[in-house]
Amino acid sequence: MPSPSLTAVLLLSCCDRIGLVSRISHFIFERHGNILDLDEHVDQDEQMFFIRVSWDMKQFTIPPEDVKNAFEPLAKEFNAAWDITFLEQPTRVAVFVSKYDHCLNEILWRHKMGEFNIDIALMVSNHLDAKPIAEQHEIPFHHFPITKENKPMQEDTELSLLAEHKIDTIVLARYMQILSPMFVKAYPNKIINIHHSFLPAFVGGNPYKQAYQRGVKIIGATSHYVTEDLDEGPIIEQDIIRVSHKDNLKDLIRKGRDLERLVLARALHNHFQHRVLVHGRKTIVFE
Amino acid sequence: MPSPSLTAVLLLSCCDRIGLVSRISHFIFERHGNILDLDEHVDQDEQMFFIRVSWDMKQFTIPPEDVKNAFEPLAKEFNAAWDITFLEQPTRVAVFVSKYDHCLNEILWRHKMGEFNIDIALMVSNHLDAKPIAEQHEIPFHHFPITKENKPMQEDTELSLLAEHKIDTIVLARYMQILSPMFVKAYPNKIINIHHSFLPAFVGGNPYKQAYQRGVKIIGATSHYVTEDLDEGPIIEQDIIRVSHKDNLKDLIRKGRDLERLVLARALHNHFQHRVLVHGRKTIVFE
Amino acid sequence: MPSPSLTAVLLLSCCDRIGLVSRISHFIFERHGNILDLDEHVDQDEQMFFIRVSWDMKQFTIPPEDVKNAFEPLAKEFNAAWDITFLEQPTRVAVFVSKYDHCLNEILWRHKMGEFNIDIALMVSNHLDAKPIAEQHEIPFHHFPITKENKPMQEDTELSLLAEHKIDTIVLARYMQILSPMFVKAYPNKIINIHHSFLPAFVGGNPYKQAYQRGVKIIGATSHYVTEDLDEGPIIEQDIIRVSHKDNLKDLIRKGRDLERLVLARALHNHFQHRVLVHGRKTIVFE
Amino acid sequence: MPSPSLTAVLLLSCCDRIGLVSRISHFIFERHGNILDLDEHVDQDEQMFFIRVSWDMKQFTIPPEDVKNAFEPLAKEFNAAWDITFLEQPTRVAVFVSKYDHCLNEILWRHKMGEFNIDIALMVSNHLDAKPIAEQHEIPFHHFPITKENKPMQEDTELSLLAEHKIDTIVLARYMQILSPMFVKAYPNKIINIHHSFLPAFVGGNPYKQAYQRGVKIIGATSHYVTEDLDEGPIIEQDIIRVSHKDNLKDLIRKGRDLERLVLARALHNHFQHRVLVHGRKTIVFE
Repeated sequence: MPSPSLTAVLLLSCCDRIGLVSRISHFIFERHGNILDLDEHVDQDEQMFFIRVSWDMKQFTIPPEDVKNAFEPLAKEFNAAWDITFLEQPTRVAVFVSKYDHCLNEILWRHKMGEFNIDIALMVSNHLDAKPIAEQHEIPFHHFPITKENKPMQEDTELSLLAEHKIDTIVLARYMQILSPMFVKAYPNKIINIHHSFLPAFVGGNPYKQAYQRGVKIIGATSHYVTEDLDEGPIIEQDIIRVSHKDNLKDLIRKGRDLERLVLARALHNHFQHRVLVHGRKTIVFE
Repeated sequence: MPSPSLTAVLLLSCCDRIGLVSRISHFIFERHGNILDLDEHVDQDEQMFFIRVSWDMKQFTIPPEDVKNAFEPLAKEFNAAWDITFLEQPTRVAVFVSKYDHCLNEILWRHKMGEFNIDIALMVSNHLDAKPIAEQHEIPFHHFPITKENKPMQEDTELSLLAEHKIDTIVLARYMQILSPMFVKAYPNKIINIHHSFLPAFVGGNPYKQAYQRGVKIIGATSHYVTEDLDEGPIIEQDIIRVSHKDNLKDLIRKGRDLERLVLARALHNHFQHRVLVHGRKTIVFE
Repeated sequence: MPSPSLTAVLLLSCCDRIGLVSRISHFIFERHGNILDLDEHVDQDEQMFFIRVSWDMKQFTIPPEDVKNAFEPLAKEFNAAWDITFLEQPTRVAVFVSKYDHCLNEILWRHKMGEFNIDIALMVSNHLDAKPIAEQHEIPFHHFPITKENKPMQEDTELSLLAEHKIDTIVLARYMQILSPMFVKAYPNKIINIHHSFLPAFVGGNPYKQAYQRGVKIIGATSHYVTEDLDEGPIIEQDIIRVSHKDNLKDLIRKGRDLERLVLARALHNHFQHRVLVHGRKTIVFE
Repeated sequence: MPSPSLTAVLLLSCCDRIGLVSRISHFIFERHGNILDLDEHVDQDEQMFFIRVSWDMKQFTIPPEDVKNAFEPLAKEFNAAWDITFLEQPTRVAVFVSKYDHCLNEILWRHKMGEFNIDIALMVSNHLDAKPIAEQHEIPFHHFPITKENKPMQEDTELSLLAEHKIDTIVLARYMQILSPMFVKAYPNKIINIHHSFLPAFVGGNPYKQAYQRGVKIIGATSHYVTEDLDEGPIIEQDIIRVSHKDNLKDLIRKGRDLERLVLARALHNHFQHRVLVHGRKTIVFE
């Protein structure tokens, strides 16, 4: 029974050994899958193998719902970390936001343009500022004010909400709260943040002010997966813009906004197309 | 009989069809080759398949000199354009130069740094300016002054010289003569030029002057394979640098020199590592 | 009578001669103006002098409405092209748009963020697609469908409308109609267009398609003042983004959208801050 | 007595006040100097005034050797930090180098191309590797091997040597020794270093290794004035290049070399043209 409009994507990493590409591509070939895109990387230092391969399911002899089961024996043999997804099935996303809305607006705009294949199932904020935007886009808005005292409780409720809505990926669109390790653990490599500096320069608060005081000639932005160590998660994308002595702090913030929007958008684009593998502190981005 | 220190590189293009990656990787696997790097691209518009795959020859069951013969039946079946080379075998290069020597110096410097795996077998010039540089680097220097009258004859002699020295790739390092179609045909996709503009802007002569007069805010450089149509060959690499009203023509030339050096060097880096496939007017660069 | 919150900006160009900066700065100094920013450029090839100087009007001994009159004798003596504006007085803007709304949205978003000091007095379109956006932002929307037959008449009506609303600057935010020379003449150096290529590469229609077919490794966008010669007006700002063989035409259009938005926004930012002087086919941008 | 071929450059900083530009430009005007370039900046946060102004000495009524004396009263009145130099008088430079010679070669090459107006009076190294290069360019080479014990003594001798040769600027072209505070104090804002990272990211040793381990997507280089605080001096120029998971440590080093060469060269270009003012931890670069 063919699946006319589906594209399968396998993301896999394991220790390198002979025959991996051959075995994986043969698995696809013998089930009549046509490979559309294959990108492979071997980290020679660590002898690790990474692959992203996508194939057309049109003539595939196995229905989509059985593909994972069929592939499992091979993955076990390789002792691999892996997943198979379908490009046409939208990622279920929750957007966390505080007061700044430029990253939020950018996501909504790109979503509307068809750049992201996602369902924005809900928005979470510790403030009410973004509520009108949520309403305008008919996205359920959940207000979770955070204090030192209520944080564990609020995060618990948030996690229940996310589970209930089968959220796959959480986007921190300039969300100004630090998530607890407990929260982060629940979504490993599934929480994407935008940090408004060229990490690891200017970690922590007020990076533009730090940059301004240091007198750098270039500012940056960094999108990364969130881990328990603040600002230390695997980097997905970075970019920079030139500044000069003519730019005051306000100019840095203004120029930085453009960076934040673009860098987060590019990171999300790659994540939503299942192009990112995490290995230790690093990412492999199959662009 | 193992070949301990060799890395084979297959570059192949053909019409897309099911099973290509599987068949190719199986060919390598069953002969005990370990794939080090595989990059594949399918042009969906043209239904063309492009691949670069490199593998370790250490355990390969076929000696290097027989690999091409062994692969030929498969390539014939696919009706493919293809080549197999070995990364460790240096490309034999001739550098053509006129008076400007910044690109020449850049190539020599990178060669000395070990960035290029090449033999610079000879230098050709229509002037004598670069002769001392050739001598300093102990590269045979051949002076071919070009006039409208002697050009066909000189090119004939050049071609004999190139053939005699088994030259594989010709680098035009700001060589200011236009090669005849006859000459170009002898080295298809083997002559690399650096054009001092962001092609297709400012074709022809004096691109910096054209750029200056047009008042562009960005200038560029383009490295491309030379075809019979001047400045129309497949582009390998391009890059740009910002300019402003403060830059006069001399500044553009100065800034442009840096671009020319870098863009040509990057194009050569990819070419010498057998990362470039040509298809029609375009290149596929497996970076 | 002091004008506490005003910043005057003089933009002036004339033939170079001795004493220009001294005379101009003395004019400001003797009236108790404090210079906040002064940028000067001499084109040595053409012996032309260009200056932008801004000063604080707080202690200025002349009221804002008389500044031009006071400066006129000096400007006449220099035989200069010049204007004096006040940074705090918003530029009156009309936005022309067709179907694509990404540039329009970018302008509206930046305006809302306070990046532009403008009044968007009206929107003009040959289609109805952008009407809801206009209504949402409470901007009067004027629909002028254009055919070969009605174009002169429609442009006449547009010009009346623009005059009536005292429009200073017209932004073509991906407006897909070519303005007649008659229309262009009415707003010299006051109509700003965004062209979706790195001009002068790929003039005319479908630049992304041209770029795709040429196989460039970099695409660009150009914002320029509109002159009678299509795509030949003085360039205000350009930028580029890298593309590769993996990018199909759709990808180029998607990546290009980001460029178009940013390049137009940067050009407008400089224009609205009175940082752009036009001289012949070129601009001097005092960044 | 006119000075036909000289261009004077004034670099000045002081507290902002009314009339500075007028007074300075009048000083030049009344002595028949024609201003060629004037760039001024007011730091509104610190109420500091910075200016670079260059003028043609052709008709100047004061001989070059008296210009400083003539200007001194004005500078005293402004309580300014200032200097006047002449563009045509070459800066006397000492290049310090260790084993890597790519930055050294870049400087020599640009000097030969006429990009820098300098006299390279001598080279200093703690190794002998660069001696042949010095000899080839006929630059006196001084070998100062450094140990923990002999460092103070060696630096003393170096300082005598530098004084004897009237060295104005010291370029650390990948010089791998840390200069003592005593040494640094002798050349305030006159020692220029190239650090192989995007400061303040990856301070200290092995920045490429740090960058590789952190998995950044962009690497950088930074040229700065040397102060007593290592890697904390005022930044003159920075630039970056993209890297990916495909780049190993060796690739980062290779790509970084290009950055180091270009960033150092650009910093030097601005320094040698007297375009850089230092204020606290920052530079004002009048580009």
